[in-house]
Amino acid sequence: MSKYLNIITSCNLDKNDTVTVTDLENPYGKEPKRHVALKTVNSQPFNAETPISLLCENFITPNDLFYVRNHLPVPDVNLKDYALEIETNDKLVGKFTLDQLKQDFPTVSIVATLMCAGNRRSDMTKIKAVKGLNWGPCAIGTATWTGVRLRDVLKRVGIKEDEFKHVHFEGIDYDVTGSQYGTSIPIWKAMDKRGDVILAYEMNGVSLPLDHGYPLRVVVPGVAGARNVKWLGKIIISNEESQSHWQQNDYKGFSPSIDYDTADFTKAPPIQEMPVISAICQPTHGDVVTVMNDRIRVKGYAWSGGGQKIIRVDVSVDQGKTWYVADFTAQDTAEPPRHWAWTLWSLDIPVGDNQEVEIWCKAVDSSYNTQPENFQNIWNFRGVLSNAYHKVRVQLSR
Amino acid sequence: MSKYLNIITSCNLDKNDTVTVTDLENPYGKEPKRHVALKTVNSQPFNAETPISLLCENFITPNDLFYVRNHLPVPDVNLKDYALEIETNDKLVGKFTLDQLKQDFPTVSIVATLMCAGNRRSDMTKIKAVKGLNWGPCAIGTATWTGVRLRDVLKRVGIKEDEFKHVHFEGIDYDVTGSQYGTSIPIWKAMDKRGDVILAYEMNGVSLPLDHGYPLRVVVPGVAGARNVKWLGKIIISNEESQSHWQQNDYKGFSPSIDYDTADFTKAPPIQEMPVISAICQPTHGDVVTVMNDRIRVKGYAWSGGGQKIIRVDVSVDQGKTWYVADFTAQDTAEPPRHWAWTLWSLDIPVGDNQEVEIWCKAVDSSYNTQPENFQNIWNFRGVLSNAYHKVRVQLSR
Repeated sequence: MSKYLNIITSCNLDKNDTVTVTDLENPYGKEPKRHVALKTVNSQPFNAETPISLLCENFITPNDLFYVRNHLPVPDVNLKDYALEIETNDKLVGKFTLDQLKQDFPTVSIVATLMCAGNRRSDMTKIKAVKGLNWGPCAIGTATWTGVRLRDVLKRVGIKEDEFKHVHFEGIDYDVTGSQYGTSIPIWKAMDKRGDVILAYEMNGVSLPLDHGYPLRVVVPGVAGARNVKWLGKIIISNEESQSHWQQNDYKGFSPSIDYDTADFTKAPPIQEMPVISAICQPTHGDVVTVMNDRIRVKGYAWSGGGQKIIRVDVSVDQGKTWYVADFTAQDTAEPPRHWAWTLWSLDIPVGDNQEVEIWCKAVDSSYNTQPENFQNIWNFRGVLSNAYHKVRVQLSR
Repeated sequence: MSKYLNIITSCNLDKNDTVTVTDLENPYGKEPKRHVALKTVNSQPFNAETPISLLCENFITPNDLFYVRNHLPVPDVNLKDYALEIETNDKLVGKFTLDQLKQDFPTVSIVATLMCAGNRRSDMTKIKAVKGLNWGPCAIGTATWTGVRLRDVLKRVGIKEDEFKHVHFEGIDYDVTGSQYGTSIPIWKAMDKRGDVILAYEMNGVSLPLDHGYPLRVVVPGVAGARNVKWLGKIIISNEESQSHWQQNDYKGFSPSIDYDTADFTKAPPIQEMPVISAICQPTHGDVVTVMNDRIRVKGYAWSGGGQKIIRVDVSVDQGKTWYVADFTAQDTAEPPRHWAWTLWSLDIPVGDNQEVEIWCKAVDSSYNTQPENFQNIWNFRGVLSNAYHKVRVQLSR
């Protein structure tokens, strides 16, 4: 861990550090204080990335540096009034306070990476404009999530997997029009012991920070960040998918030649499991890098959804003519198909006599899927699934 | 189905059509007769592809046109002497004749595509030579496999998933040195209800043909063809992987800069779940294609391992500047993560005023993984996982 990181992560913020509410009509009146080092992508709703210089310094991302992807204002949560409701066929079949969840079900922890489906969108935008927040490569982070298994809770209230097809999650976050955040996942993922879906009340050993869903968030490992609903208020078991905007008209991938005017959202499935991705965190674009023993040090992350493990990261500084295999500096021990965390990697790569190089990286996962080479052929008008090779151009000094 | 297909598939061969054995010392004395239309890639052991003109004509590949990938001579099978043995810790824990399997366990059928991990190797070879059989794009086929669930059988003999890590399969095929075909899969795949691994005795409604493993073959859907052991003689439950050549020193992927001299086979995991792939079956390289209404018809297949479904196939005739979305002509209704069969597709694509075009195709699966663009960056010295875009150059006539 760098000295810098030690300093700036020492100021831990938590859910109690909310701003003073002076205007009760302001929907953003309950936003928490945020770490000054977070890189804001949008202020209302708040969206911010971990600074790239810190992202790969820790296998477990510190809570207050974890990327924030809010779709709506942070809700006004009062734990005394809080209960999770479970509903099916318009009937309430279960209701649990946080204490009841903690007392009634076994506690479990999983190490899981969450990533926004729009992570690295800014790379895709260079090909052609897209509609969406201009995320760099740091809308990703890894935490130890502690809570109870969703399957235990659903079984307790009598849900049988073969009687339904989808599990909806509704947040208690609303916008001024009354729109509420919600989405759904297929029921097999919720009920399968290998799905590892948990209702989390802790993140890295402390109560969930407000920006990460206090008091309860569903963690759906291996699946797009958007399905990991924060401030979870209600679970609905259904034969239909969620009809929310975020399920039906967002977070879907399209062919490069389709745009907003020609897109038929009913034809594309919602993004659930995420494809393999990687990024270089160090150095960054335009850096002047000192060459040591004819090499430069390159560091980054790689991750794949669906419980796949990263098995190799290849790095090149000559447009792919030569590839070097990176060393893994941190990887979880869980085996696929239950490997939920990213892999951190590092490589001292030879750079020859060059004055500048473009560094490329690509990852391979345990299903031997690999990344597409460039953005032209995966471009989509929403700028999601932006997982082509990461390419970083740097100057070299000796 | 084309008229041509009707004619040539009318001559069904079966296991009884073995050649006359004139030389008892000949290890290849028990080879069956094969369909004349199969495209031989190697004669001993026999390896052959489905002819490309027929591959996409049927969602279910006719048995006698199904690609054959034998690693060793076809064994001399006598059903009267046959029994499947199950062993753990060097102890026999179960033994079943084929009739006992049929009587003692529920019958199940799955529709699954099998593909050799070396399918499309000949495309990779164009970049740089590789070591392996020169497969075209037709080492793939789809069948309805009928048999009993492996998990049912393993449970019956008392196997508990959490006590072991791997399940080995040994064939009764040997070479002259006594080497026996064998390989293994992780136990979760064997025991999970969503793994859908079956001990199959029928292929498309008839007894397994001799070339496809009569009397019993394990079908491990979503996984490299090599793990689908034919002529299954023994199952071993273990904490170690199979130590066979095919598990340890073959069917693994490596970085493009690694060759036989520098490869460390212990560093790469065996190929199990396969990455997304697609190919154009019609037209083929060098064809002269008649333009109709400014378009040509392109047909092909797409498939992904791990139970993923193909959600889109994109086709381009201008090096990716414009992509068109293909129509699916045949797809199984099973949902991921239990979708095991390929998708057939077709597209009448506009070709403008060109005199010739290079057709590209690429597929996207339900985890939104897609194919790498070219072979340079995925080249590996064994020529496996050859899933870059398929590119076919044709002349146009009007």
